[in-house]
Amino acid sequence: MPLSEAQQAEIETARAARFETRRATVPALEEMLFTALPVLDHGFVRVIDYMGDDAAVVQAARVSYGRGTRKVSEDKALIKYLMRHRHSTPFEMCEIKYHVKLPIFVARQWIRHRTANVNEISARYSILDKEFYLPRPEDLAAQSSVNRQGRGDILEAEQASMVLDLLRDDAERTYRNYAWMLNEEDAEDHDADRPGLARELARMNLTLNTYTQWYWKTDLHNLLHFLSLRADAHAQYEIRVYAEAMLESVKAWVPGCYEAFCDYRLGAVSLSAGMLSVVKRLLAGEAVTQETSGLGKREWTELMLSLDRPGA
Amino acid sequence: MPLSEAQQAEIETARAARFETRRATVPALEEMLFTALPVLDHGFVRVIDYMGDDAAVVQAARVSYGRGTRKVSEDKALIKYLMRHRHSTPFEMCEIKYHVKLPIFVARQWIRHRTANVNEISARYSILDKEFYLPRPEDLAAQSSVNRQGRGDILEAEQASMVLDLLRDDAERTYRNYAWMLNEEDAEDHDADRPGLARELARMNLTLNTYTQWYWKTDLHNLLHFLSLRADAHAQYEIRVYAEAMLESVKAWVPGCYEAFCDYRLGAVSLSAGMLSVVKRLLAGEAVTQETSGLGKREWTELMLSLDRPGA
Amino acid sequence: MPLSEAQQAEIETARAARFETRRATVPALEEMLFTALPVLDHGFVRVIDYMGDDAAVVQAARVSYGRGTRKVSEDKALIKYLMRHRHSTPFEMCEIKYHVKLPIFVARQWIRHRTANVNEISARYSILDKEFYLPRPEDLAAQSSVNRQGRGDILEAEQASMVLDLLRDDAERTYRNYAWMLNEEDAEDHDADRPGLARELARMNLTLNTYTQWYWKTDLHNLLHFLSLRADAHAQYEIRVYAEAMLESVKAWVPGCYEAFCDYRLGAVSLSAGMLSVVKRLLAGEAVTQETSGLGKREWTELMLSLDRPGA
Amino acid sequence: MPLSEAQQAEIETARAARFETRRATVPALEEMLFTALPVLDHGFVRVIDYMGDDAAVVQAARVSYGRGTRKVSEDKALIKYLMRHRHSTPFEMCEIKYHVKLPIFVARQWIRHRTANVNEISARYSILDKEFYLPRPEDLAAQSSVNRQGRGDILEAEQASMVLDLLRDDAERTYRNYAWMLNEEDAEDHDADRPGLARELARMNLTLNTYTQWYWKTDLHNLLHFLSLRADAHAQYEIRVYAEAMLESVKAWVPGCYEAFCDYRLGAVSLSAGMLSVVKRLLAGEAVTQETSGLGKREWTELMLSLDRPGA
Repeated sequence: MPLSEAQQAEIETARAARFETRRATVPALEEMLFTALPVLDHGFVRVIDYMGDDAAVVQAARVSYGRGTRKVSEDKALIKYLMRHRHSTPFEMCEIKYHVKLPIFVARQWIRHRTANVNEISARYSILDKEFYLPRPEDLAAQSSVNRQGRGDILEAEQASMVLDLLRDDAERTYRNYAWMLNEEDAEDHDADRPGLARELARMNLTLNTYTQWYWKTDLHNLLHFLSLRADAHAQYEIRVYAEAMLESVKAWVPGCYEAFCDYRLGAVSLSAGMLSVVKRLLAGEAVTQETSGLGKREWTELMLSLDRPGA
Repeated sequence: MPLSEAQQAEIETARAARFETRRATVPALEEMLFTALPVLDHGFVRVIDYMGDDAAVVQAARVSYGRGTRKVSEDKALIKYLMRHRHSTPFEMCEIKYHVKLPIFVARQWIRHRTANVNEISARYSILDKEFYLPRPEDLAAQSSVNRQGRGDILEAEQASMVLDLLRDDAERTYRNYAWMLNEEDAEDHDADRPGLARELARMNLTLNTYTQWYWKTDLHNLLHFLSLRADAHAQYEIRVYAEAMLESVKAWVPGCYEAFCDYRLGAVSLSAGMLSVVKRLLAGEAVTQETSGLGKREWTELMLSLDRPGA
Repeated sequence: MPLSEAQQAEIETARAARFETRRATVPALEEMLFTALPVLDHGFVRVIDYMGDDAAVVQAARVSYGRGTRKVSEDKALIKYLMRHRHSTPFEMCEIKYHVKLPIFVARQWIRHRTANVNEISARYSILDKEFYLPRPEDLAAQSSVNRQGRGDILEAEQASMVLDLLRDDAERTYRNYAWMLNEEDAEDHDADRPGLARELARMNLTLNTYTQWYWKTDLHNLLHFLSLRADAHAQYEIRVYAEAMLESVKAWVPGCYEAFCDYRLGAVSLSAGMLSVVKRLLAGEAVTQETSGLGKREWTELMLSLDRPGA
Repeated sequence: MPLSEAQQAEIETARAARFETRRATVPALEEMLFTALPVLDHGFVRVIDYMGDDAAVVQAARVSYGRGTRKVSEDKALIKYLMRHRHSTPFEMCEIKYHVKLPIFVARQWIRHRTANVNEISARYSILDKEFYLPRPEDLAAQSSVNRQGRGDILEAEQASMVLDLLRDDAERTYRNYAWMLNEEDAEDHDADRPGLARELARMNLTLNTYTQWYWKTDLHNLLHFLSLRADAHAQYEIRVYAEAMLESVKAWVPGCYEAFCDYRLGAVSLSAGMLSVVKRLLAGEAVTQETSGLGKREWTELMLSLDRPGA
């Protein structure tokens, strides 16, 4: 379980409170506030705070004095126009803050998105909990034979079991030795005659599937960019599940932006000049093949997949 | 006046509304919300939205699950510690959004602070209002003779009056010609036989004291950095008054951070290695002069000013 | 002319020097180095320095120890792959620095691109030259009737002439008064009895077509993003000509990246989920109209334009 | 050894080449170019490329056309002035690129500096080498009893030896199992009947002292900010040694900026308003104690340390 009873109680206390505000408020997101959406075996995503809503995007695009009196349909059309034409600054006017618990190797991918504010628990200062990610057997896959950076077939049961045993044993042993080196006063095997190794050193013995935590805050534009990359089918499964949980919060928070995002980003394809020229020839009735297309093999395959012609 | 009656009414409507939220709320800032704090002759600063409070800084520094149960004094001490040691990331967890009306030459200084989100009214799309900044006579000063980038003595009344006449005349003439070139359909002197010049071109005839507007959103860390530079005595008066109005909102919003900021930033001085060595020699009872100090003249003067020894 | 004789001489001196280096060097860009590419009536773009080349992108993508021994064709294919899949970080490994002279209203658009380093001439500190942008008659266009943010038909000769007279007169008058208020000691009409107004104040009287200058430095990824927006047909003409001059320098500097950029950015189109579905139906032989397409009018028109079916 | 023979040969080849350039060149840095400065047991820092020099900072501050003809002493004074008054943008005009090999737990601290360009070797794509950091016995210290985030006394020989055995054994075992799960075709114990686990999964079994590599590029301003934090006595030893190696490259590259940096950053102290008031009272001959100072205990101690009065 990702949360202790004390933590769960703290969350419930926070959820029980109500305040009065003049700020824009989104009931559907308020409903999710503070709750931990479980991800992987011990991780979670929690929405901690937010600022703005669909109308804030519109208000910024119009640099208006109040919330405006236009029809909802006009606002939705404006949001779609902004998204389609990549006018990104109005989407930067909404902000959201998450509390995330995630394995370190996922955190290392995630942190590459630089336009965000982050406060991570410090293993120089604190002792990390004994929690590490162990995949479900159905998530253990062989190296892909076609994509040097992806997964292929799922491992057979016996092999999966061997892999999980290794992962579990190594994580437990390295954590046990981590604790032994720390020699904390309240540890079971504390030995008063032995100094404890500095935390900033002992942590180097932990494996990359150890869980860490952070507060992560970003604006809606940068969040959507993050999600377009990490909720994508090419993203590693272990970060994609976080992106999917966050997409749920976006849907609750800014439904107009979410809809435009699905249409113009998640479901969109970019056609290069060469690809576009092939589409025009196809529309003109020409029988184009990869050889006559002017495209490389890889680009041809990608185009055919986009057009639902995988066999072409 | 910076606001029309319609704008004022829009603001009053926004202020009248109340919503229920689970989010951290700051009554003192709620009280200021949406209201235009007047700045210069036609400008203003309005707080439009905010996220977080003093406790959010503490919560991020501790990466905690709830709002915590520590004493207020402990939280204040932690904020001071973070500010003193330039642990800046917890301050990035609070966010604020302003609506600002300001002369273009001020906007050009302001925009150099890159770590912010901005939506400015577009003069390609909209027609700018006929409003331009004219200094009060007491703000018209001669070029400083000691600082190539500052002001010296205030102009005498007659000279100030001549300057103001020039500024006013030029601004009015260029605006009149701007409107003439636009040839808007609802203009008094609209001439149906004449095309209107594209807005994106006509705007080039406006002077730099014309007012523009933007939504400007940033996090508390970057806001404090902005304020430390722009509320400083060396900042140009016309941007300093905006910084001072914003400081009031910071004081209402995050009083603990504000206090630490005053102590460790606004009121602090940085001593170079050379300056520090002089201070130590003075404390040891040595009679140090500029010549024996090892400091350049300028640096010596700055040090003596910091130590309230201007004559030394 | 954008350059004085003294400036031209300084540039020639810089161009005459030769140094020995171990760094990657691009002869075609060296040939352009320091030379002013003229833009508009008084502006220019000059490449001042650069770092990296096509091979540096490849080297970073492979995190390799040297420059590698792969074939040029493999490197080109890798660059295309990176561009197509928006792996942007390897393109950040090349850096370029420009010196640009440009009208203030263009500078105001340009500065919105935040991921760059900028040093602009300070009108608090220096006196701006008497140079302002006056469009050529063929660049004076009426406000577009279909696009609220664009140009329509070119003005007729007589009207263009009236507009130019206004622009010239206003710029000259406001500059004359700027100089009068400054009352510089070496000015022809200097009056020793009169104080000079502080530069930081006098500048507010200048019009937005006054030229300014800056050093602008950015990495290749952010430069290409800038160029994709500003070399686009929807960009305002006065910034587009700067983007086009810079594109020439990119072509000389990193020909492999330039080619990929033309194919996958400049010449590419993004199809939304809805647009893609229409393309599939068209390819299946269905006669789709705007009404049956599920697309809005605007989106339909954009799709038909992309497919070279403007009448559809 | 951090480098294989093949890598060393690639570096020598790169170092042997010479090109002609018009760009500013710094012989002392050219001399270091591509060479690996060893750090820790298997790590290194290599300067790969650079752009600009001391004169580029001056040129940007003056927005000048050429390299200028001022005296070197004037340029040095200007650089000091810029550094003292935190005019940071001219320092952004120089850029440097490093190739760094470093333990993952160090990389995790380092990456928090967001204003840089990074390309890290991908463990989704490549197999990491069997190299992990093992501290020297004299670098193994106990947790500090006064600083929750630092080291205290060095471990005694026997204890250090036990710790090192644990670290080595765990790193070797987890790496062995990593390789076993990968089941690479060219591995000694390759088993054709067994699929290899996807690299993106297997990597989670590695410990945080495993070495990774990246290309890291930043501008001089952000580099100096990084170094002021990471070359500081409070930084963890394992990142400080990287900062110290990079400081050497800064000294060779921009000696004027380096000198100003040592005086105004590394050797400087910031006095809060409260601390400053204590210094003034001391200078006036008053006998101030912590109790009468108005400072907290911690702040008092910090001040006394700065003034070389540790016992006060």
